[in-house]
Formats: sequence, structure tokens, C-alpha cells
Amino acid sequence: MSMAAIGGTARGGCNRQALTDEDKAGRDQFSAWAKSSGCTVSADEIGNLFARRAGSEPQAPAVLVGSHLDTQQTGGRFDGVYGVMAGLELVRTLNDHRISTRRPIELVSWTNEEGCRFAPAMLGSGVVSGAYDLNYAYERQDRQGRRLGDELRRIGYRGELPARPRPLRAAFEVHIEQGPILEAEHKTIGAVTGIQGAYWFDVILEGVAAHAGPTPMGMRRDPWRAATPIIDLAFELAEAQAPWGRATIGDLKVSPGSRNTVPERLAVSVDLRHPQREVLEAMVSAFKERVAALAANARIGARIEQVWHMPPTEFDPQLVELVARSARALGFSWQRMVSGAGHDSLHTAQFVPTAMIFVPCGAGLSHNEEETATPEDLAAGADVLLQAVLAVADD
Amino acid sequence: MSMAAIGGTARGGCNRQALTDEDKAGRDQFSAWAKSSGCTVSADEIGNLFARRAGSEPQAPAVLVGSHLDTQQTGGRFDGVYGVMAGLELVRTLNDHRISTRRPIELVSWTNEEGCRFAPAMLGSGVVSGAYDLNYAYERQDRQGRRLGDELRRIGYRGELPARPRPLRAAFEVHIEQGPILEAEHKTIGAVTGIQGAYWFDVILEGVAAHAGPTPMGMRRDPWRAATPIIDLAFELAEAQAPWGRATIGDLKVSPGSRNTVPERLAVSVDLRHPQREVLEAMVSAFKERVAALAANARIGARIEQVWHMPPTEFDPQLVELVARSARALGFSWQRMVSGAGHDSLHTAQFVPTAMIFVPCGAGLSHNEEETATPEDLAAGADVLLQAVLAVADD
Repeated sequence: MSMAAIGGTARGGCNRQALTDEDKAGRDQFSAWAKSSGCTVSADEIGNLFARRAGSEPQAPAVLVGSHLDTQQTGGRFDGVYGVMAGLELVRTLNDHRISTRRPIELVSWTNEEGCRFAPAMLGSGVVSGAYDLNYAYERQDRQGRRLGDELRRIGYRGELPARPRPLRAAFEVHIEQGPILEAEHKTIGAVTGIQGAYWFDVILEGVAAHAGPTPMGMRRDPWRAATPIIDLAFELAEAQAPWGRATIGDLKVSPGSRNTVPERLAVSVDLRHPQREVLEAMVSAFKERVAALAANARIGARIEQVWHMPPTEFDPQLVELVARSARALGFSWQRMVSGAGHDSLHTAQFVPTAMIFVPCGAGLSHNEEETATPEDLAAGADVLLQAVLAVADD
Repeated sequence: MSMAAIGGTARGGCNRQALTDEDKAGRDQFSAWAKSSGCTVSADEIGNLFARRAGSEPQAPAVLVGSHLDTQQTGGRFDGVYGVMAGLELVRTLNDHRISTRRPIELVSWTNEEGCRFAPAMLGSGVVSGAYDLNYAYERQDRQGRRLGDELRRIGYRGELPARPRPLRAAFEVHIEQGPILEAEHKTIGAVTGIQGAYWFDVILEGVAAHAGPTPMGMRRDPWRAATPIIDLAFELAEAQAPWGRATIGDLKVSPGSRNTVPERLAVSVDLRHPQREVLEAMVSAFKERVAALAANARIGARIEQVWHMPPTEFDPQLVELVARSARALGFSWQRMVSGAGHDSLHTAQFVPTAMIFVPCGAGLSHNEEETATPEDLAAGADVLLQAVLAVADD
């Protein structure tokens, strides 16, 4: 828990946002621990931090283990940091038992996973996967206009290593679930099969502003008459794909937003998710088609603007099976599941066989200072990680 | 149209907000015109401006005619000012025809009808009716913290006349409809029977914030699941009372309002109206009862906060009949109707028999620089006003 003290908040959480002094202190601490455990530490051009434990065959593609050390502004003590610390614990365990592996084991802490200081999220791993250009990443600015590239240099973590894929055997990320499923199902381990795909839309509904008093209901063109069935439709489409479909109306802006004026315009934020590409695409097609019909029926203009899209990611089936087998062998209750949130593994899956291991978190809370996880569950996740890594480190 | 030039906007509207330099210029112009038409001009303590044309029996209770000269920030050229100018035209017509009336005729321009600079609206008439205390009115502040009482003195219209009711025979206010009904019905004159009652509520719906990705639909407590049926309910209650019931969702605030977070809280602004007290009260009771049931059904906490209430106003039946008779006698198409918006007549009805005359406005637009009305319709309203005033000025 000494990592949690860096950027520790009064309410028991963490504020260690990417490339702040706190992030530097966290990186320094991690580097010191890794070096004292015999690792070689280096940073790449985008500041991703690698700590390498040599293998008996130094040129063999390594096994990558890690997550991220940055946090949200009012973040918890487990999101990300758990995956990095579990990797360090793994190295120490191998050292304690004088276990040598054929392949090197490489710990990683990816730069700017959270995206709360510099958008977009998962930037460091995304540069390596080729999703983002290095210079694009350098030019990202925080709210004060400070550029990511400058901040990286300021804290001394703009490294020499090229930010691109190297030959790797496998990548594992252990993480708290950030959702309520394992807790509700009384399971200790989630063998994560992939990451949900998501679409973000703004549905813009345009009617005619009118005075609340003098305008009879029948003479109005009120965009709410399209909005309520459209919101219900989003929920209905997600529920038809239970338990993995999701629909969220996270925001809605009313214009002009005056108590006694029929709105002229509503902007409805719609987030649709599903882990299977074809199901997600079918949800989206049905949504678009029925939005048009519902709006026309209410005599309301409708326009759907796509704000963002994250395609579904499927992890390596053999590594997922390895995680499941490890959990079973260790006697932990477990289940296959999909990650609802994005993770760096989304990008690593593009260049190395990847899998994730989830452990429960209290009440599904995350991105929250009250984030919790039990020591037993955290240890279980680390044990499964160790088993899985050992299985591929010598193959 | 020289009044419209005072505070005239580039887009053809008016910005002559209460107690600004533009309002002073408008008042000065009106006073000059009224004096040159033989009227005695005076202001009361709250700045209501009276222009009195003497009657043959000077002590007889007068007939009051007028409206207001202040406008919205992006107001039109007709809202309010038409009623004041129609009164002035009436006096000039009587002068031109050397008609003397037994009762005095008193023109009025009420202070701060719009309420956009100093809340609440209809303040000058409200002080006279006793709805508001004089000192309360003086202490109202604009966004810059300037007090109404100080601004009234600054522009020289804080008068000596006590701001309380004097004996009056009748009050007439002619006004553009500010709604689409007369235009749609192809009628020239609205004989206004009263003003709708209105309730403003905030419906606060509280669920549990959750991540859009990891949280299955069945494990959410999403306040939208209560909000959409509650919004539909408001519309249904209004439509069940067609054509006079009204429901408007003018605003809705989402907390935290993040695209990928299930909202914790929605604040839904609900405006419910009907001209009959018992019907309005029944709408409100049904709304409250069914909101509680819909929220409970969605496992969402619900609280209804009453923000404002304006009871329905019924105008004097004999004066309404007089307006109708005048329209009929002059050969104008006409209908009885209810005002959806508030007017100073709402307050004058508390201390003097009151009626209003509506004329159509283009597309129902008002509080808008594009507000229009045809010269023919405006003249028709003034003619009906003249007939109605003459009928009581000598009774």
C-alpha cells in the first residue's frame, strides 16, 4: 500500500494522474522496486515503462505482465496499480524460489491509461499498437494547455526505446472487475474472453420552440415526443441481448432549457455495447432504423452523430483457457466473462496474444475513492497470474 | 413604430428591459405623447405610469386601459407596447371626435412586466394588487446586483402616488395572443375569459451511478427508467384535458452527465397548466400519485419539489361579454379563449373588473425578435377596445 500513499487522498483514494509529479513519484517508486528485484528498467518514446527480468534464453520473445499506474482524479487504490504490483510480486516470488524461466518476463506500466488528464484514454499502449501516431500523442493537451510530450520530458520519462511492438509470447493483465458481476455471482476469478465493443452517439432531435402556456398540445412539435420512445428503445435493444447488451443515456442537453418553453432541440447521448461484433452491429442498425421511424412519427427532425466507436476485442482463446485452467487448478471459483470497460489489453491484443484476469471489487465501484477489493481476492488473482505466466514462460 | 425604435435591435426586435435607459426613453416618449393628448401623467411608488384623461364627472371611478412598455432582452415590437399604444390611440380618437366621457379614462404602463431583468414578472401590477410588498419589490436585484428601487430612482420614475388600488370601474388590456390559436382558427379577436393556472415542479429522480460498460442492465438502478414514463404521463394528463391542458418539460438536468456513466440523478422540470382550478388540481394530484408509483416500480427514489404556482384567473364575465359583443358589432370574427401566458391583468383582476382582448400574432411567435402582427388585426383590436371602453365609460 505504499504506492497508494503516492497521490493518496483524504478519502482513501488516489489522485495520481498521468505525467503529474505524483505519477513521476509512482514511476520512480516502481522503478526502484523493480531494480532491487533484479530487473532492467527502461522507458519507450511515449513513456511506457518496462522492467525486464532476464530469461535463460535472453533472445526468446518475452512474457508481458502489467497494467497502469496512473489514476483518475478521484480514483481508487486498485484500478491499474493492482496489475503492475501483481507483476512485481510475481518477479519477487520467482526470485524467492530461485525459479529461472526460459523466456524473459517483462513488467509494464502503460502511459496515460485513464485519459482523464490527456484524452484519449489508453494512449501509451495505443501508440505501440499503431492506433495512434506518436506525434499525435505528444500534442495532446491537458486543461491548462500543457502538452503530453512536454510533460513526459519534464518528469524524465520520455525514453529512447521505440514505441512499437517487439516480439512477445503473451501478455497478461490482472485487474479489478470494475463491475458487480463476480461479487453477485460469488466468484473469485474472471477469465476475461474479450472487451465489449461500444458505440457512442448523439441523437439530435429538433422540434419547434414554443411558449408553455399559449401553445395547445396538438399544435406543438415537441422533441420529447420522440425522445422518450427513443430512450426506451435503447434499453429494449440492450435487454434483448441480456446479459451482455448495454445501453446508457449518460447525458441529455435541452435547448433552450427554459422551464416555460417547449424545447427546440434535445441532444441525447447514447452508449450501446456488446462483446460480439455482429450482435453490436445489429443493435446499432436496429437503433438507427427505429430512431428514424419514431422521430418521423412524432414529426420531429432526427440526426444521429457517431461520436466514438470501439470495436469488440477478442482475447487469445488459448490464453483465456490457460487462465481458466489455472483458476481451476488452484481451486478458485471462476467464470468466463467479458470486460465492459476498456483496458490497455485492447491494444496489446493487436500485436501479442493477450488475456486478462479479473477479481471482484466491492459493490462494483470503481473510478471512485471508495473502490475496494479484499486481500484474499487480490492474492487469488496474483496466484492465477503466476500459474498462467509460468505455463508460457517455459514453452 | 417610433416606440419600437427605442431599444430597437438589428434583427427588428426590441430590447427595452425594465428600468434601463431604454425603458426611461420609452417612458419619456409615452409621457410626452400622453401630455400632448391632454392627459395628466403621474407615476406611483413602484413606477407604474398613469396618464389620465379627465371625465365630465372627475370623481367617478375611472376606466383603466393599458399594458406594459418593457420588453424581453430579445423581445418583439408588439408584446405589451401594443396595449399601451392602443390606449393612447383611443384617447386621440376621442379627442379627434371631441367625445367626452363621464368617467375618466386612465392609461397605464405597468413596471417590470417581463421579469427578465428583475424577477418576478408582473411586479408593478402585483405590488398594487397586494401580491408583493413594496419593499420586497424595491430589493429585487438584476444580475449585476443593482436594486430595482435604486434603478427606479435613477431613471426618475419612483413616483409619489401610493402603489395601491384606487376606485376603478373596469380594466382592459389588449395584447397579441403570443400563441397560435387565433391564427390557426382564422379569427381576428380573442375575447379572453381568464388566464391559465400553472404549477412548476422539479421531479428529482435518484438512482445509482454505475459504469456504462461493466454493469449489466438488470443490475442497474437507472433513473431514466422512471423518467421516460413520468414525462409521457405529464403529456397524457394534459392531452386528456384537450384543448386547454398543457404539459411542458422545459429542462432536464443529468448528474453527473457523463457519456459512459449511468446517471445518479435526473432533475425533470415539469410545467402543468389548465384554466380551471379544479381541473388543474386534479391533474396535479394524479401526476403526484402516479409519479410515486412509476418511480417505485423502477426502484428509483422520487421527490417532487414545487417551484412556483399561479392560480387560474377568471376575468369579469360581463366585461368578457362586452368584448365579445363589441367584436360582433364591428363584424370581426372572434372566439372566447383562455390566456396561456401571464399578464398584468392577472393582478388587476384582484381589485377591478378586468378583461383582455387578443389579436393574432404570426406563427404564435413571441418573446422573439421575429414577433409579427398585421396592421389590420392590430387596428381591429384597438377598435374593439374603443367600443368596450365607451360602453363602460358612460354607464
